[in-house]
Amino acid sequence: MPRNSDLPTEPLDEEAVHAIHNGAMRVLEEIGIEFLHDEARQILGKAGCTVSADSSNVRMDRDFVVEQVRKAPAKFDITPRNVDRTVCIGGNRMLFGNVSSPPNCSDLDRGRRPGDRSSYQDLVKLTQYFNCIHMKGGYPVEPVDIHPSIRHLDCLFDALTLTDKTVHAYSLGKERIEDAMEMVRIAGGLTDDEFNARPRMFTNINSSSPLKLDFNMLDGPMRLARRGQPTIVTPFTLCGAMAPVTIPGAVMQQTAEALAMIAFLQTIKPGLPVVYGSFTSNVDMSSGAPAFGTPEYLRATQISGQMARFYDLPLRASSACAANCPDAQAAWESAFSLWACVSSGTNFVYHAAGWLEGGLCASYEKFVMDCDTIQQMMKYMQPMTVDADELAFDAIKEVGPDGNFFGASHTLERYETAFYSPFISDWNNFEAWQEAGAVQTPERANKMWKQILSEFEAPSMDEAIREELEAFVELRKEQGGAPTDF
Amino acid sequence: MPRNSDLPTEPLDEEAVHAIHNGAMRVLEEIGIEFLHDEARQILGKAGCTVSADSSNVRMDRDFVVEQVRKAPAKFDITPRNVDRTVCIGGNRMLFGNVSSPPNCSDLDRGRRPGDRSSYQDLVKLTQYFNCIHMKGGYPVEPVDIHPSIRHLDCLFDALTLTDKTVHAYSLGKERIEDAMEMVRIAGGLTDDEFNARPRMFTNINSSSPLKLDFNMLDGPMRLARRGQPTIVTPFTLCGAMAPVTIPGAVMQQTAEALAMIAFLQTIKPGLPVVYGSFTSNVDMSSGAPAFGTPEYLRATQISGQMARFYDLPLRASSACAANCPDAQAAWESAFSLWACVSSGTNFVYHAAGWLEGGLCASYEKFVMDCDTIQQMMKYMQPMTVDADELAFDAIKEVGPDGNFFGASHTLERYETAFYSPFISDWNNFEAWQEAGAVQTPERANKMWKQILSEFEAPSMDEAIREELEAFVELRKEQGGAPTDF
Repeated sequence: MPRNSDLPTEPLDEEAVHAIHNGAMRVLEEIGIEFLHDEARQILGKAGCTVSADSSNVRMDRDFVVEQVRKAPAKFDITPRNVDRTVCIGGNRMLFGNVSSPPNCSDLDRGRRPGDRSSYQDLVKLTQYFNCIHMKGGYPVEPVDIHPSIRHLDCLFDALTLTDKTVHAYSLGKERIEDAMEMVRIAGGLTDDEFNARPRMFTNINSSSPLKLDFNMLDGPMRLARRGQPTIVTPFTLCGAMAPVTIPGAVMQQTAEALAMIAFLQTIKPGLPVVYGSFTSNVDMSSGAPAFGTPEYLRATQISGQMARFYDLPLRASSACAANCPDAQAAWESAFSLWACVSSGTNFVYHAAGWLEGGLCASYEKFVMDCDTIQQMMKYMQPMTVDADELAFDAIKEVGPDGNFFGASHTLERYETAFYSPFISDWNNFEAWQEAGAVQTPERANKMWKQILSEFEAPSMDEAIREELEAFVELRKEQGGAPTDF
Repeated sequence: MPRNSDLPTEPLDEEAVHAIHNGAMRVLEEIGIEFLHDEARQILGKAGCTVSADSSNVRMDRDFVVEQVRKAPAKFDITPRNVDRTVCIGGNRMLFGNVSSPPNCSDLDRGRRPGDRSSYQDLVKLTQYFNCIHMKGGYPVEPVDIHPSIRHLDCLFDALTLTDKTVHAYSLGKERIEDAMEMVRIAGGLTDDEFNARPRMFTNINSSSPLKLDFNMLDGPMRLARRGQPTIVTPFTLCGAMAPVTIPGAVMQQTAEALAMIAFLQTIKPGLPVVYGSFTSNVDMSSGAPAFGTPEYLRATQISGQMARFYDLPLRASSACAANCPDAQAAWESAFSLWACVSSGTNFVYHAAGWLEGGLCASYEKFVMDCDTIQQMMKYMQPMTVDADELAFDAIKEVGPDGNFFGASHTLERYETAFYSPFISDWNNFEAWQEAGAVQTPERANKMWKQILSEFEAPSMDEAIREELEAFVELRKEQGGAPTDF
């Protein structure tokens, strides 16, 4: 698990951080947040918050918020069915997850199309294959060929059998989240108590910005909280759209919304692991479309990092872009997003592989390309040693002014591991590249995902557990899965 | 002129920085540098260095080096013919220059081809057009249709008439550098004394790593130094090729080579403005080809920043890539290089626009694409304010939980300038993008450079000065220009 030892880039001084905190507290005290969940409001009322009698508005005073938020751990583990893949979120750990929730997917052969189960499985396999993807986030593409009432059953079954990494479950109603907990419990071969004893899975919720937490976004985390399972709280605060056009204002609103939820969850389960999620970015003011990897995204994410550290909470951000194909724009937007994550001290990078079109499409090729750049970051984060061997005075003396270092023993002893070897970049010279067909980056990635998928082997699972999981899915399908109105 | 207010990323602690300094001093004391220039060796001998009687080797002790280097200013101005375009190099200023010295150029219409004067002029016009390019570096492409004996005359004439920015001159023999100084003096309408009184131009030299400074690389800077003109000293220390395979070792060698030259120049002109140049990167160990924008490049550049600050010298680095076309690989390598420059506190980013193929090709399209990302960096570097207006509490209250910020007065007052508007990125949704022809990034850049060139107007120049410049070029051509052996 990579550790990011760089000091984070901090655009704001301490006074400005306090000003954002103070503003967020004023939002919670003077404006309040809509909690669209009766039980949630009752809990908050009992905890001393000001619950409106004729609306969903809840106001919290800063002492309550700070006291509750302080109960959340600065870092925590999540243990999936393969305990060797336990992840630690927080501190200086930096983890990466796959693109989550796009309705469409694309590859160079078949073009762009709505997601289906087969594509979903493909992208889950890529999630499993790459070691730099530490957790399975949301569905890497929404499989719309499965009816929504049972989609969560098939998808989680695939996730739990095709990967052995930590999985995410959507908070979309009681049945889906309860089913998910049960399936993760079964897959881990756990008793209820064992499941409840520590984080085994997670959800990510978006507040309905501005200032609103809808029923499902509250209900799922409440159910998870009661069984000790963590929630990433990610307000959807795009500057100029659902939040102020100014970055400090948007991060202030993001902070208010995130802390409202985090404080609430602590009243249910004191000490519950949670993550402060940042999704603040700007929009294209001519169309309202979100933009990512922008200068504004960099600063918003860095400031979010300052706020996360102020509250001693782990930070989630994203590696995202607005581009419509895996070309140069996609690459620089994603590279700048990655930089935002590294320089902000982000602990968990959501959407780190495969994201295109502001999140509306998962690209097979971009998934592979992103993994190459993530691995570059992981190499970047490896600690450096400066000692006599690394300083290589003797090698410089040996080679002298008329030699080169290609054949020096100092080089030969190290050259195989000295540098990161990218698997997608083509470092041939122009003539060799041209002779080989002038293949551009996405075409190279295309070849690679096909090879990965053709050779994919699912991680092992105890046959009895697999049968129990299958039986559960079958039973719940017979029962109709989760209710829908269509 | 942008200022980079981020604290630089420092991978090494103070002890490790001292270890690199100490190692570099040992290289200069115990191994020495080849100075392939008789007069240079005489000067260094008189200054107390140990000059070999039967080789070109010069050894310097650390007291001499440190004393000389200390004379160089931490920052300095260069004043081109348009004094409004005076640049300041050092401190927290961050400036950008065009790609320099590739033998080939390419565009989507004509493909890749050897450089000629017409392409050279095109790229010089782009250098002038973009405000984010603060200085004209070396030739943006080598115009091989002009005979080398007179190439410098035509190229500098074009540079001085098509731009009014600070220009670079190659240190390739006495005639070329003397001609360049004379032409810059004429273009500025300056007397000799006025020219000599302050920096008006610059050169960049590469040591012939390992441990060698060849005749031309010494002779040009010596001539410039005597007239107070600055040199950027950039060792060519690719890890595993011309320098140790280990990054600390390569930066140590880079430091030894750079300081040898800088110390030497200070003995000629105490207080001469100089720049510590970093070009340390890794190579593809299978082919020996240089790689850029790699994890190793990031760290090497950041450590170079630490060394530059240790000696209180301005830092030059590069925004480079190894890719053969302006695709995703080119974009992420260049984005990571830019990040290396920003996070290292680089003062002057050489090769910042147009670079492809490890420096062997200048791409018209990439030039334009790079300028868009540089401008993003410039927006990123703008200082942030956190006050009541920016925190937007009242706007959040006004919009409330059921509104959005698109129509809020707080948004309307700011939306036109709140965010950087990229000129190359396409932020349309997929359907609109597809309907418009699914145009990828390089095609958009292609359209833009054509428009820029078709509308280009050269900056004004006094007619008498222009005639004087033309007459000088004519005279020097009649005299045969610079001697060549072909």
